[in-house]
Amino acid sequence: MTGTTNNTQINGDRLWQTIMCSGEIGRGRSTGLSRLTLSDADKEVRDLFVSWCEEAGCTVTIDRVGSIFARRVGTDEGLAPVLIGSHLDTQAAGGKYDGILGVMAGLEIIRTLNDLNISTRRSIEVVNWTNEEGARFIPPITASGAFIGDFDVNWVLDLQDDDGKRFGDELERIGYNGSASVGGRDIDAYYELHIEQGPELDAEGINVGIVTGGYHTVGLKLEVHGETAHSGPTPMDKRRNALVGAAMLIVATNEIGWTRYPLGKSTAPRISCWPNRTGILPEYAQITVDFRHPDGAETEAMVREFEAKIPECAQRAQVDIDVVQRWSFGSEEFDEVCIEGVRLAAKDLGIEYREMLSQAGHDAYNLTRYCPSALIFAPCREGISHNEAEHIDLETTLPSVNVLLHAVLKRANR
Amino acid sequence: MTGTTNNTQINGDRLWQTIMCSGEIGRGRSTGLSRLTLSDADKEVRDLFVSWCEEAGCTVTIDRVGSIFARRVGTDEGLAPVLIGSHLDTQAAGGKYDGILGVMAGLEIIRTLNDLNISTRRSIEVVNWTNEEGARFIPPITASGAFIGDFDVNWVLDLQDDDGKRFGDELERIGYNGSASVGGRDIDAYYELHIEQGPELDAEGINVGIVTGGYHTVGLKLEVHGETAHSGPTPMDKRRNALVGAAMLIVATNEIGWTRYPLGKSTAPRISCWPNRTGILPEYAQITVDFRHPDGAETEAMVREFEAKIPECAQRAQVDIDVVQRWSFGSEEFDEVCIEGVRLAAKDLGIEYREMLSQAGHDAYNLTRYCPSALIFAPCREGISHNEAEHIDLETTLPSVNVLLHAVLKRANR
Repeated sequence: MTGTTNNTQINGDRLWQTIMCSGEIGRGRSTGLSRLTLSDADKEVRDLFVSWCEEAGCTVTIDRVGSIFARRVGTDEGLAPVLIGSHLDTQAAGGKYDGILGVMAGLEIIRTLNDLNISTRRSIEVVNWTNEEGARFIPPITASGAFIGDFDVNWVLDLQDDDGKRFGDELERIGYNGSASVGGRDIDAYYELHIEQGPELDAEGINVGIVTGGYHTVGLKLEVHGETAHSGPTPMDKRRNALVGAAMLIVATNEIGWTRYPLGKSTAPRISCWPNRTGILPEYAQITVDFRHPDGAETEAMVREFEAKIPECAQRAQVDIDVVQRWSFGSEEFDEVCIEGVRLAAKDLGIEYREMLSQAGHDAYNLTRYCPSALIFAPCREGISHNEAEHIDLETTLPSVNVLLHAVLKRANR
Repeated sequence: MTGTTNNTQINGDRLWQTIMCSGEIGRGRSTGLSRLTLSDADKEVRDLFVSWCEEAGCTVTIDRVGSIFARRVGTDEGLAPVLIGSHLDTQAAGGKYDGILGVMAGLEIIRTLNDLNISTRRSIEVVNWTNEEGARFIPPITASGAFIGDFDVNWVLDLQDDDGKRFGDELERIGYNGSASVGGRDIDAYYELHIEQGPELDAEGINVGIVTGGYHTVGLKLEVHGETAHSGPTPMDKRRNALVGAAMLIVATNEIGWTRYPLGKSTAPRISCWPNRTGILPEYAQITVDFRHPDGAETEAMVREFEAKIPECAQRAQVDIDVVQRWSFGSEEFDEVCIEGVRLAAKDLGIEYREMLSQAGHDAYNLTRYCPSALIFAPCREGISHNEAEHIDLETTLPSVNVLLHAVLKRANR
């Protein structure tokens, strides 16, 4: 294999061009993207990504939940590959960089190795995970969850969006119902590069974040059951308005986050209500809420405070409230050997970095439970993300991509 | 014309049969109906109603907003007709009687006059008003509002449901985009029979309510504007979650109703939220709320208290809140001459009645501003309405239909 030096650098302009091409597919209202998973726009960007990977000489495989793996074969094909990836789907009002940077950085690494005629001992694969955002199908980080065996493949295929469209049917519709098994194979290590989605790197002027762990996050889905009745004559003491119960829970959620300010956060992002018509009291509401804190004990305390509020809200609104789903992430830790490899790559390149926790969920949270994994952050302006104003600059992004390249190269030559 | 006596009675079994036939069209989940306006089920019941009216010898006219008028010609065609009516649409989880009783009672009166070979000096028309409920298109009592000139016809035709379907297009789809002008003609008097939708008649064992006025009702539509951001890293003080602002308004609405218990009522029946996805703070929410009290000054005081809460909610949730629509009804009074005619009919028939206020909105609220009008109530079990468990009995319903018959007959022979 060809040796590498600090002059082995990725092509920033070409990387930027791929990101800008992606940024034209599924344009939002202003400068961002609205590219929900398995939408027409998702198909379009997938097709483009696959064609680029094939042009770069990769073998492309699609698994049964639609994740795309592009493999650059190593000199010792029998060894487990090094995997690099993230996601090409976005929120309904997302930015051009969230997830996309990580996938395009993987592609750019392969192109760079091709350009410099560098071969690696282990194969390198770039992956685009399906439905990282969870914006269309709940839960998020779905396909990577299936990859590590957390979710049954058929359960994933049966997920439905708000319009009742099935994950599996939409996958078939856009032609990404692959035949490859989901997971069940050795991965030597997983690397994910992502924009920070928080303000720290930008504020400190540091261009590389090495993630050691996550904010401990607990999410709950709650159902509120009341009864329909006429909005007019029904006396207050006979009302069982599910929307009122849901609103009380949302207010309680928000207040609990404030008690842990600035480290703690609580969110109520979503509600559904039925019949949701004027003139009739709603009999059903569903909400999701989540609580996050770097200290897991504090997260759990916030959840307990919220749960203690539930009977109070149920009584006041005269409804029944059930927690029907609970999920958590962020207590995972990343692999010390991988992290050290990233540190060394940064040091070798003379790039300043800091170690930090991730406040958002990522596919890497799943992968780190499956194989040695590392998560690297690039700065984003003011930490704005899941907003069309999300912004990064090539100059401040390039250092993290080069760190990724060198960390991956070293790992792939183990 | 043939004289009438107290033996002139409507055919209860036949009335009941029409209601039960209607009750098979657009069946809900249990014993009620889900027959939203301009749906396939609405078309089906309209077709049936029209065929029945034509069989009864009526001339059927459809106006431009889809209201159906079935006319039984009087001996003096030049005189303004007496109009009887209500609505055949229901809530998404409604009963079999709300609105339907009033329309079918009108049809039954015409059939009874036919059976007994009774002619009237004035023509009698039975009307089915489009979109009384407002469950699919906001605002409610739409077509009767257009009839009296409150709403421009083209404005009504451009209303959209939650799926973006246009009122005018849906009217055309089901074949009820009539050509008759909306309103603009003389009506001698309007009579509406409706189930009470409140518990009073049922509790007191009285079968006829004569409505003298309404609960003063004020409705507001509010928009909440925030900003999308990531649910994770965004600190609490940077969050502008529109759903949190909306939830605060809903809780405030509910609390204000309780301060006027038992007479006052406040309702938050409906919410929409965008993007309404996990992982992203919502930038937009819309809610409707309403406040009702028999004393208009109290209703206005409740609205003022609510409005005073708006800046507080906006500040706490860090959002902007606008009242974008305001409507009111229920301060209308019914015509003393018409009311006295109903009273006399009840007395002549020896039927006990009580006078009362209506807590719900009705098409009669519109018509009373256009022509002399009366609204009559029949009891419904425990006041349950806008609920599939809504229930009435023929035995306790028949008295009000006969009172309606005699009041109309007398008026039509003026």
